[in-house]
Amino acid sequence: MTRVTVWNEHRQERSDAPVSAVYPDGIHTPIAEALREAGFDVRVATLDEPEHGLTDAVLAATDVLTWWGHVAHGEVDDAIVDRVQRRVLDGMGLIVLHSGHHSKVFRRLMGTSCDLKWRESGERERLWVVDPAHPIAAGLGESFVIEEEEMYGEFFDIPAPDELVFVSWFQGGEVFRSGCGYHRGRGRVFYFRPGHETHPTYFHPDVRRVIANAAGWAAGPAGDQPGFGNRQPLEPTVRS
Amino acid sequence: MTRVTVWNEHRQERSDAPVSAVYPDGIHTPIAEALREAGFDVRVATLDEPEHGLTDAVLAATDVLTWWGHVAHGEVDDAIVDRVQRRVLDGMGLIVLHSGHHSKVFRRLMGTSCDLKWRESGERERLWVVDPAHPIAAGLGESFVIEEEEMYGEFFDIPAPDELVFVSWFQGGEVFRSGCGYHRGRGRVFYFRPGHETHPTYFHPDVRRVIANAAGWAAGPAGDQPGFGNRQPLEPTVRS
Amino acid sequence: MTRVTVWNEHRQERSDAPVSAVYPDGIHTPIAEALREAGFDVRVATLDEPEHGLTDAVLAATDVLTWWGHVAHGEVDDAIVDRVQRRVLDGMGLIVLHSGHHSKVFRRLMGTSCDLKWRESGERERLWVVDPAHPIAAGLGESFVIEEEEMYGEFFDIPAPDELVFVSWFQGGEVFRSGCGYHRGRGRVFYFRPGHETHPTYFHPDVRRVIANAAGWAAGPAGDQPGFGNRQPLEPTVRS
Amino acid sequence: MTRVTVWNEHRQERSDAPVSAVYPDGIHTPIAEALREAGFDVRVATLDEPEHGLTDAVLAATDVLTWWGHVAHGEVDDAIVDRVQRRVLDGMGLIVLHSGHHSKVFRRLMGTSCDLKWRESGERERLWVVDPAHPIAAGLGESFVIEEEEMYGEFFDIPAPDELVFVSWFQGGEVFRSGCGYHRGRGRVFYFRPGHETHPTYFHPDVRRVIANAAGWAAGPAGDQPGFGNRQPLEPTVRS
Repeated sequence: MTRVTVWNEHRQERSDAPVSAVYPDGIHTPIAEALREAGFDVRVATLDEPEHGLTDAVLAATDVLTWWGHVAHGEVDDAIVDRVQRRVLDGMGLIVLHSGHHSKVFRRLMGTSCDLKWRESGERERLWVVDPAHPIAAGLGESFVIEEEEMYGEFFDIPAPDELVFVSWFQGGEVFRSGCGYHRGRGRVFYFRPGHETHPTYFHPDVRRVIANAAGWAAGPAGDQPGFGNRQPLEPTVRS
Repeated sequence: MTRVTVWNEHRQERSDAPVSAVYPDGIHTPIAEALREAGFDVRVATLDEPEHGLTDAVLAATDVLTWWGHVAHGEVDDAIVDRVQRRVLDGMGLIVLHSGHHSKVFRRLMGTSCDLKWRESGERERLWVVDPAHPIAAGLGESFVIEEEEMYGEFFDIPAPDELVFVSWFQGGEVFRSGCGYHRGRGRVFYFRPGHETHPTYFHPDVRRVIANAAGWAAGPAGDQPGFGNRQPLEPTVRS
Repeated sequence: MTRVTVWNEHRQERSDAPVSAVYPDGIHTPIAEALREAGFDVRVATLDEPEHGLTDAVLAATDVLTWWGHVAHGEVDDAIVDRVQRRVLDGMGLIVLHSGHHSKVFRRLMGTSCDLKWRESGERERLWVVDPAHPIAAGLGESFVIEEEEMYGEFFDIPAPDELVFVSWFQGGEVFRSGCGYHRGRGRVFYFRPGHETHPTYFHPDVRRVIANAAGWAAGPAGDQPGFGNRQPLEPTVRS
Repeated sequence: MTRVTVWNEHRQERSDAPVSAVYPDGIHTPIAEALREAGFDVRVATLDEPEHGLTDAVLAATDVLTWWGHVAHGEVDDAIVDRVQRRVLDGMGLIVLHSGHHSKVFRRLMGTSCDLKWRESGERERLWVVDPAHPIAAGLGESFVIEEEEMYGEFFDIPAPDELVFVSWFQGGEVFRSGCGYHRGRGRVFYFRPGHETHPTYFHPDVRRVIANAAGWAAGPAGDQPGFGNRQPLEPTVRS
């Protein structure tokens, strides 16, 4: 059974009334529920736990990590960022959600600023599938709508996705590459845009389905652990 | 259970002693065996059957089609090529093997000449995994060796693969992109290089594993069938 | 000096009053003007000329071909399509405009249906740059607006672009990958969405700039003509 | 005139006899010569200068930076790495050479370990062009040979290149993706494999041509500087 660790900063839900009104048990709770309903073995980890809940033992027992953070990116310990990056390169899947675009973990793995335009406007978002051959699009229609969301607009400063699955339309005139797959080392990374803390986005059935599909995609079989360093020749190298 | 149709030209095995010595029951037989051993529901179709064995009914009941052809590409009916292309765009997986690079089906789907350099020399080929995060690399080492194969060398006139999984090294000094994944419409296409008719390549355990992995990858879940054509607006388009 | 051939179907401008009102001299005329202003050596070719104006001699003297067609795709001779495809693979640039998505030439080179959703509504289109490192984006702002255009919506059945430069937003709720670059053989191909025959899109300064940028990009230096076929080994292949 | 800064660690040439025998004036000297001969305006910067020679003023006046380092990657100041990364995202080109794969700058921009297999064996390397449509391949044959080089072998832990131009063959049985292009932010990055300090690789005419081509490619026109942060809507967002 695929083991998913749902990581959440878990700050605004405890301090900010409009957020706790929507996510009284933390944003991690509906995300974890969605994954459990889809058959995953789920645990939760949060920023204020020792080592942010991401000990070596937890990561070793994690096939896929999901990441939501917003106001406290700077409090994430660089040693934990190193550890998560190494574990992804060693084969752990990673799903970065919404404002996690600015997390140290995502910026580390992308190598870019991961910056974007934004507007807290509660406007309508339509997510269009631009790669219907992709397993993360399974079970969805050609597009789906989130009635009220924060806007994220291009330019999104990421490497061109290896696999672009969704593009968002926003009422205010912007577009956004909102479902972006990457292979990094032996691991797979998926960025998924929706999920502002004042909107009930993680209760939306299509959003939940995408997260579950992404966990399945990120956890699938992969190749052998590569070796690095000095090597003897496999074939004769005498000069002819 | 995933349904695979193994398509074979099946000519040289019946007419050419060095080929029938290696593949007395046709090249399709070890390919079909490898897939059955991996748990697929397999049928075989060949060029000289009516409609080349690829009727609408057969294709409708095929999740993944494998394709081996060599000396009779020109005899494949263009109407069947149209049909296979449509079925791939509608979601059927396609695995093109070795000299199938010059098949009408592959050239149609790639849009290029699919030409390459070659040499029938029985030299050593090493296939290196260049994407260890890819499911088609599962269960393999970092590289594997085929002791005697035909050489295929770059430039291989294909679109840059969406997913490059293997690169081959040949004794004679050439390299080749030998495991190439593509999304086309709702379907997935994988080209896999090895498989010359005078070498027992399709009995090689790693070659068989790659073909089974590719069938699993090509048959996985995908998004909804897209709609095309004239559409009413989803949002108000009055000029503001 | 880079030589561009501007190809136009040139039918609706002669038969259809709303089209001739906007493009009395043919859609090719403002396209050719834009390219001449940008310093290219431009000639025009149209469907009703012998060999559609695309003789071997013309193509041999063409560094970049632009293609606009709409109602008469089916009248383009397959032999000319073969010739254009070969010339692209041999290094000629190709810029496919708007309804040229359904041309035989583009579908041949893409290997897919190139189908899409559409609506003749004169609604607003915003084109966003999603790759500011791309030379085709030079001289533009972060986005630009066409006040009235036909809508094209996803899913656009093309191979994932090698280089995605623009994504369009439409008033009616759709998005579209509207600037798509490809390498095919030794040639470069760019698809650019805008350009409906009843709107003055080809007089829009940013549209003209994109077409000129694309011609420069498609005509730039490239590698040697590849060789194909049987080859002697470059290194000793005796079995060790 | 395009301004290139050639950065070199410049340590082994001063301390290690076999290196100074080949590069008595530093590895940067033949690289700078190659670029000057190709018409670039070249300056040199080295590790032991203040701020490693990469002050804000120098980077602001640099269109393309080339990077060679090997034994002292750890001595490069993180603040300078930050500065180079920012400048690349703002539009400066970057060409990373050989053992620069392990530099902080390259690892930062790639987000991966950039590790690989290696062997100091002086064996033969053949570099094959796998994208003849790419401007960096201009003026080369289909492949070229370096008679004696260090071997680098896959798996090379980098993001799949946006543009894969060269694949290397080594006598000892390995292959390597040795010419890798990336767009990052508004900048372009090229990794080019050859260049071991004990071989006269930077006097090889094809190697010099590749570096000059890459500088031209990396310095070409690009799009506007993107804006980030909070934005007002461009279209009415009242709920319909």
